[in-house]
Amino acid sequence: MSRSHDGAADDGPAAIEITFQPMGVTVEVPRGETLFRAAADVGVEVDTVCGGNGLCGKCKVLVTDESSVAAKPIDHVHLNGDEIRDGYRLSCQIEANEDLVVSVPPAGARNVKILHHGVQREVPLRPNVLKIHLPFVPPRSRDGIADWDAVKAVLPSWFTRVQVPLHWLRRLPALIRDETGMTLTIVRRRTVTRIEPGDTTIDSCGIAVDVGSTSIVGYLLDLNTGEELAVASGLNRQAAYGDDIIGRLSRAQFDESGLLRLHELLIDQLDDVFDELLSAAGADKSVVTEVTVVGNMAMHHFLLRLDSTYLGLSPYAPVTRDSVVVSADTLGLHLEPDVPVYVLPNIAGFVGSDTVGVILASGISTARTPTMAVDVGTNGEVVIGSRDGMVACSAPAGPAFEGARIKHGMRATTGAIDHVSMNGDVDFSVIGDTAPVGICGSALIDIAAGMLRSGLLDHTGKLLLHRELPDSVPGALRDRLVDGETRKDSYFVLVREGEGEALSEIVFTQQDIREFQLAKGAIRAGQMVLQQQVGIEDDDLGEVVLAGAFGTYIDLKNARLVNLVPPIEMGRLRSVGNAAGVGAKLALLSTRQRSLAERIGAGTEHIRLSGLDEFQKAFTHAMRFPHINPTGGN
Amino acid sequence: MSRSHDGAADDGPAAIEITFQPMGVTVEVPRGETLFRAAADVGVEVDTVCGGNGLCGKCKVLVTDESSVAAKPIDHVHLNGDEIRDGYRLSCQIEANEDLVVSVPPAGARNVKILHHGVQREVPLRPNVLKIHLPFVPPRSRDGIADWDAVKAVLPSWFTRVQVPLHWLRRLPALIRDETGMTLTIVRRRTVTRIEPGDTTIDSCGIAVDVGSTSIVGYLLDLNTGEELAVASGLNRQAAYGDDIIGRLSRAQFDESGLLRLHELLIDQLDDVFDELLSAAGADKSVVTEVTVVGNMAMHHFLLRLDSTYLGLSPYAPVTRDSVVVSADTLGLHLEPDVPVYVLPNIAGFVGSDTVGVILASGISTARTPTMAVDVGTNGEVVIGSRDGMVACSAPAGPAFEGARIKHGMRATTGAIDHVSMNGDVDFSVIGDTAPVGICGSALIDIAAGMLRSGLLDHTGKLLLHRELPDSVPGALRDRLVDGETRKDSYFVLVREGEGEALSEIVFTQQDIREFQLAKGAIRAGQMVLQQQVGIEDDDLGEVVLAGAFGTYIDLKNARLVNLVPPIEMGRLRSVGNAAGVGAKLALLSTRQRSLAERIGAGTEHIRLSGLDEFQKAFTHAMRFPHINPTGGN
Repeated sequence: MSRSHDGAADDGPAAIEITFQPMGVTVEVPRGETLFRAAADVGVEVDTVCGGNGLCGKCKVLVTDESSVAAKPIDHVHLNGDEIRDGYRLSCQIEANEDLVVSVPPAGARNVKILHHGVQREVPLRPNVLKIHLPFVPPRSRDGIADWDAVKAVLPSWFTRVQVPLHWLRRLPALIRDETGMTLTIVRRRTVTRIEPGDTTIDSCGIAVDVGSTSIVGYLLDLNTGEELAVASGLNRQAAYGDDIIGRLSRAQFDESGLLRLHELLIDQLDDVFDELLSAAGADKSVVTEVTVVGNMAMHHFLLRLDSTYLGLSPYAPVTRDSVVVSADTLGLHLEPDVPVYVLPNIAGFVGSDTVGVILASGISTARTPTMAVDVGTNGEVVIGSRDGMVACSAPAGPAFEGARIKHGMRATTGAIDHVSMNGDVDFSVIGDTAPVGICGSALIDIAAGMLRSGLLDHTGKLLLHRELPDSVPGALRDRLVDGETRKDSYFVLVREGEGEALSEIVFTQQDIREFQLAKGAIRAGQMVLQQQVGIEDDDLGEVVLAGAFGTYIDLKNARLVNLVPPIEMGRLRSVGNAAGVGAKLALLSTRQRSLAERIGAGTEHIRLSGLDEFQKAFTHAMRFPHINPTGGN
Repeated sequence: MSRSHDGAADDGPAAIEITFQPMGVTVEVPRGETLFRAAADVGVEVDTVCGGNGLCGKCKVLVTDESSVAAKPIDHVHLNGDEIRDGYRLSCQIEANEDLVVSVPPAGARNVKILHHGVQREVPLRPNVLKIHLPFVPPRSRDGIADWDAVKAVLPSWFTRVQVPLHWLRRLPALIRDETGMTLTIVRRRTVTRIEPGDTTIDSCGIAVDVGSTSIVGYLLDLNTGEELAVASGLNRQAAYGDDIIGRLSRAQFDESGLLRLHELLIDQLDDVFDELLSAAGADKSVVTEVTVVGNMAMHHFLLRLDSTYLGLSPYAPVTRDSVVVSADTLGLHLEPDVPVYVLPNIAGFVGSDTVGVILASGISTARTPTMAVDVGTNGEVVIGSRDGMVACSAPAGPAFEGARIKHGMRATTGAIDHVSMNGDVDFSVIGDTAPVGICGSALIDIAAGMLRSGLLDHTGKLLLHRELPDSVPGALRDRLVDGETRKDSYFVLVREGEGEALSEIVFTQQDIREFQLAKGAIRAGQMVLQQQVGIEDDDLGEVVLAGAFGTYIDLKNARLVNLVPPIEMGRLRSVGNAAGVGAKLALLSTRQRSLAERIGAGTEHIRLSGLDEFQKAFTHAMRFPHINPTGGN
């Protein structure tokens, strides 16, 4: 599209030619047209929040011959000295008076890749929280109009319904008279959560948290760019009150002080995780403008200090399944008081927002073919479905995958063996490339698979004695096997003292194998029940997505070998890391993803496994391993 | 409309005849139809909140032959034993099986007359707050669905978007398991502000408050019936910090502790007024479900503890003009913490929500012809307009009309002389029919008019000396005049000790006359300026409405005589009492009136009088009285 005006005689040409780089788009515009509008006319996407009103400072472009466009006062409000010198100007403030070539920075709803410790997905950046800088306007010039009216007058039109809480109204008169202007933080285009002097638009970060029964993982994201600035995690300190959900629920049952204690432990720990994130990014807590949280139903109740008495008693009624938005202040978090904490919606029973996060991250709710997602954790959540509907269940796996009840188990952090191969002898990798300290969940799967394949383990989960070993077992592995006085005292030395600079040996015992069998058996049985319920055979599944808060990806071949997933071809298996955490990040970065989460929470059917005969039957079957012809290695 | 069904052979007639009394409407309905639907079909209005779902208990009817319709368990949930015995049943639960005659109580959006101390207006009762009783449902039967989902499932469909704050969610599990059921208080169909055990729907009261600079008046209204249960008032205790607004504003200027003190005085006093209202009605504070407040802009700021520094400095910018909803808890009021306090919107400058209340009560915003409303108080607000538009101003009258700066002045409460006539001698009425103690605002107008008419006072406001009195002055009045040593020490003995059982004499001094002149002059000058600004002559005014927080009506003839209103014929003058307070009551009783208030606040133009030459000129003129030929009496 181009425009031309005839007959306008002036001190220059009536039509001006503007070229936008790197697109290489040239447009003819009438004299005096702003570059911002010229760009919009030809579909060149220039970033903006305020719609070209000089309020947001986001529409800057790089003017190739910067001397041709003098910086205006408003440019100095939004751009720093370096940018001005380099030739950056606000495109909404440049009126075309001569032909110009400008470069447009990557624009608008920026596509953000989410990579760290989770499935890679691209979503356009549409944060729920916006910061808008309003330049100082001398009050004298406002002729007695109300301060808040003066603010509303300069806000973009789509903020007309914005509400300001009383405590910010109380501070408005001083702030609006600050000569550096002020920055409003606005949530959902509706509510002011902060007013600060000066321009702080550059500082807007969100924290996404995955509150697991066993571990808590937090992510600090820059809401202006979508960039992940830091990750921090820790073992859930509630473990002191029970390493599974049932133990903690009974601690809080009919006991407000017990509930309060669990709640406070969680809040304190979140504060510590936030501090760690901020300190890693070198940022102050004032930059945090929003928090999103996923967790199972019990964590949801403990976080919000909701009476969990009846969640722990048949028929296991939660207080609410809905998403909750609550201020940091209300929860007692040490962030700015009004920072909204968005707790994603739950599904039902124990199937919480962590599973909604998994569904969001794995894309099941928009899939065309039936897809199954399996989240491996203390509770193993399973979802089967497509855009036509979804069912979910929670299988009581116990904390083995999180490293608990495993002799040398640990969570997926520095020093944890995360992957193992047994090709002739044991080979392993360690998180953080340091000396090995213990074994995390993803390695359990590899070890069990390796021992099965090499013949150290039979299909019932029995660790063979030396005299029972088939000849094919390599000597190096054979040497690591220690027969117990009784069969249950047998164990396998995964790492000898000194190997990989290990300070002490790391073993894998017969008891560890039993724990692993219980865990993976429950999760596989959950899959089998769901498949039966909806009548979907293994062959009908377009894809099986395997997730876990391991900080690493599960080896799919091994997962299939140990019967953690159905025996389908590898091409239909996908490993996505901590999908629940990715879901929390997606909800933080995009209001559209958040709406999707709401629909997932409301629309996913829940199947309760407890007391279900089919589950007990499937469990017995699923605990076993397949019959393997030992190969002597991977 | 009637229905008939053919061919339905059963154990009775297929079509049943129902007669509704007192309407005398008969309808034929198919067997099994509920009476509630039958009534709706023929346009008989039966009260309901839940839409015929057995939830609200409001659709009761009196069955003439009560033995023909057995009470169901749900009837016992909503109706008491007496009602059941008398033959009351829920019409939504009665299925027509034989011909019936029923009586329908006055229904639905009940028309409520507002009478007390204000203009009489009828509005349909549509409170902003609803209470809904939910009968107990055994949790076992709910099969593990979330407590909050169980609540939402039984709420009428138009409550689908209802939100429940976290602190009520925390108490929900215990409440939903209470066998008496529970009552939800819901504001704006959106937010739960309370959950109580049992059925408390009968207890729902609102408080409307008019916070004047001089006095505070509260009204307790039953939101189920619209009935006014009590009125309480008191002098604004902020008077200790200045008897006009300017004094108090300067006390709070750049001084947070001053602002806090003024705020706390007001909050404490409101608590006392509320206690007085509740104790007069014999009610507990838990019955209060909402509060509405009107007041001028300064009172609005003090109430909300908004920084009023710049409101007191040219160009007199308020922090906000908007209506504010804030919880009782946030303001520190000793009501239930979540009770919403709705502060009506303001217009601009000092013209606050009290004027919005006057406009609402006097109906200017919907009037077809230009109408003027005058609110007589410490600030005399004047509004001229119609449904096509309105302008308003605030005239600095000072506190004379509220009884301050008048030697024996007092507010309009028990013992105040509220009306005076001087027909030969002084005759007066006293609020509460007790011994007179002092003079309130409405009496000032009567006294000035009486003295003018009888020749004691000249048109400049000078109290004549005995020797200057015209012969026509009756002896009885003449005897009450006391010449001062200087002219300014002269006074008039309105009540002698013992008259009307007065404990001491009540006088009206030359200085009192001057104060009265300043007050009424400012208010009349405001009218004149507005009339000039919009080009509306006295003859163009369809009506002039006179209001004041006097607790009584202004004598219109006298008001016209003293030049408080334009010299138009009596038929176009109307006195409406405390219209600001009526406005607060209307906003409490009807969400439609509240929407109207929002439009009035946003759409009324403000004319600032201060510094306006026209105002000074008009003021000089308006202070005077007209030339009167003394008549010797009324």
